Amino acid sequence: MKSSRNPPLQVSILSKDAQALADHLSSIGDIRHLVDIVHVTDNPQRIVPSEVKILLAAPNLAVEMIGECHNLVWCQSSWAGNRPLLNHRKQDYLLTGIKDVFGPLMREYVFAYLLYHARSVNAFAANQAATPPIWEATARAPLHGKTLGILGLGNIGRALIPAAKAFGMKVIGVTNSGAPIDGADHIYTKTSLLDFARHADHIVNLMPDTPDTQNLLSTLFFSALKPNTVFINAGRGEAIDDEALLQSLACGKPALAVLDVFKEEPLPLDHSFWSHPNVIVTAHTAAESSPQDVANIFAENITRFVQQQPLLHTFDFKKGY
Amino acid sequence: MKSSRNPPLQVSILSKDAQALADHLSSIGDIRHLVDIVHVTDNPQRIVPSEVKILLAAPNLAVEMIGECHNLVWCQSSWAGNRPLLNHRKQDYLLTGIKDVFGPLMREYVFAYLLYHARSVNAFAANQAATPPIWEATARAPLHGKTLGILGLGNIGRALIPAAKAFGMKVIGVTNSGAPIDGADHIYTKTSLLDFARHADHIVNLMPDTPDTQNLLSTLFFSALKPNTVFINAGRGEAIDDEALLQSLACGKPALAVLDVFKEEPLPLDHSFWSHPNVIVTAHTAAESSPQDVANIFAENITRFVQQQPLLHTFDFKKGY
Repeated sequence: MKSSRNPPLQVSILSKDAQALADHLSSIGDIRHLVDIVHVTDNPQRIVPSEVKILLAAPNLAVEMIGECHNLVWCQSSWAGNRPLLNHRKQDYLLTGIKDVFGPLMREYVFAYLLYHARSVNAFAANQAATPPIWEATARAPLHGKTLGILGLGNIGRALIPAAKAFGMKVIGVTNSGAPIDGADHIYTKTSLLDFARHADHIVNLMPDTPDTQNLLSTLFFSALKPNTVFINAGRGEAIDDEALLQSLACGKPALAVLDVFKEEPLPLDHSFWSHPNVIVTAHTAAESSPQDVANIFAENITRFVQQQPLLHTFDFKKGY
Repeated sequence: MKSSRNPPLQVSILSKDAQALADHLSSIGDIRHLVDIVHVTDNPQRIVPSEVKILLAAPNLAVEMIGECHNLVWCQSSWAGNRPLLNHRKQDYLLTGIKDVFGPLMREYVFAYLLYHARSVNAFAANQAATPPIWEATARAPLHGKTLGILGLGNIGRALIPAAKAFGMKVIGVTNSGAPIDGADHIYTKTSLLDFARHADHIVNLMPDTPDTQNLLSTLFFSALKPNTVFINAGRGEAIDDEALLQSLACGKPALAVLDVFKEEPLPLDHSFWSHPNVIVTAHTAAESSPQDVANIFAENITRFVQQQPLLHTFDFKKGY
């Protein structure tokens, strides 16, 4: 058993998965003697702000009380994106996020829907459900030889590259710098966005929610798409002009929109996306981390915090990511 | 323009895609001066057997007339599997098949359905189709960290390995020899089939139809599966004991069967597979080559034939593959 020289760190947990996070943390032998968990709740009202020193929290809940947490030193967010906290006036603490665990999950989401379309899974299902069932080769459109376009090639976007290559696809991307990226055949920037749209067969948006990406994907962008494009938005809903997408869908560009994120979440029940025949809606679950993933990263950061080493996955309030 | 020193080769085309095959062949500049296409039909009755010297044919049609083709020198099959021709008494000609084009197609089929299951695509679709629609995170079961088991690691089976690796999966396989294969973590043989079944999280059968694979996948095999296994049969229907599979499905082993090949095709309308909630039926289209793919391989073999070089993808009647 390990004894720490310092007093235990006072940790507050604020999340719909608070209990699961606390349980996972307590099961990590090296950590449980370093921390004293003082709050475990999904309700911001039940937190005593003055007692909050280290906070493990979902950003949408944390914003409701973080302004009053005058003793806060460090907040470990349980999300990849942190717009609510980055936009908050309080910025005098360390903010860290979750990375690396999202890439493998996002990869499976993106290729699940690209292949669903490529292999006409729905058409075969309809044939099987028909009375009598129909034995028929429906049209398929292999990914092999096609080009995958990725908007935003951070940690998560880059995780798509090896899978795209394994399916024999080319990869192009859009980044701020336009600098070359391992495995990508060409990198565009926001100023060459329409060129990017013209060259991609299928497109995935993974851009973070920063002011200059808001409504970036507009009528111009969608009308530049090739026919038969699958467009996947698993970045942030703010990147899309919803009306532009709906109008362009009517012209078959994209042929299919797969949307996991929205300007308002949950997506309002009367939103046209729900009932559109060429839109697939999922519930912001493309790369939902498990409580265990989050606890593991927090534990690693606790070790670093105690040893006064730099924390993993820190955010820069000025840059906004 | 190239002039050949020999008289043109007499080619007969017998396939439901006969015209498309003839068109593609005629569009290949180096080839069209080497061949004289004498039959283009999907009807074996319309072929004059004595005129058949080189035959480009689907095996199921070729068997109806090949016995009478006494001048046949070489048959280029348009399929990967050639059981109908390999079982026929006439074996005094060169038989070549189609390879290499099937791997990329099979890869997309297999991962389309593995990811369909992993990402609960059907559950999200049901939520979207509900009135009112349901915003809910349904259960998902990532492929990352799981083990893919491949029965039969020829040309096609090996094409799955890089994709499995790109998704962070382990790969195990079953082959005749049990010899190591690049990228596979362990290779079993038919004598250790149950061990293989116990160690795989998901299984794809790609074994060719040889006498010793018939009904190899029996009650013993299916009951050795882990819970939540997706079982995909895209090899030959003869490998499966249908009754054993149906009984084992009732116990959740496998959790989902994705079947592309059957003992009788088209699958009879009254077969229980069609209506089983945990069976997905596709119409022997997992790795259906395009007429263009077939024409390209035939063209390469024609060049080799004229230059008296060994043909690609020859079959051995004795070995049966």
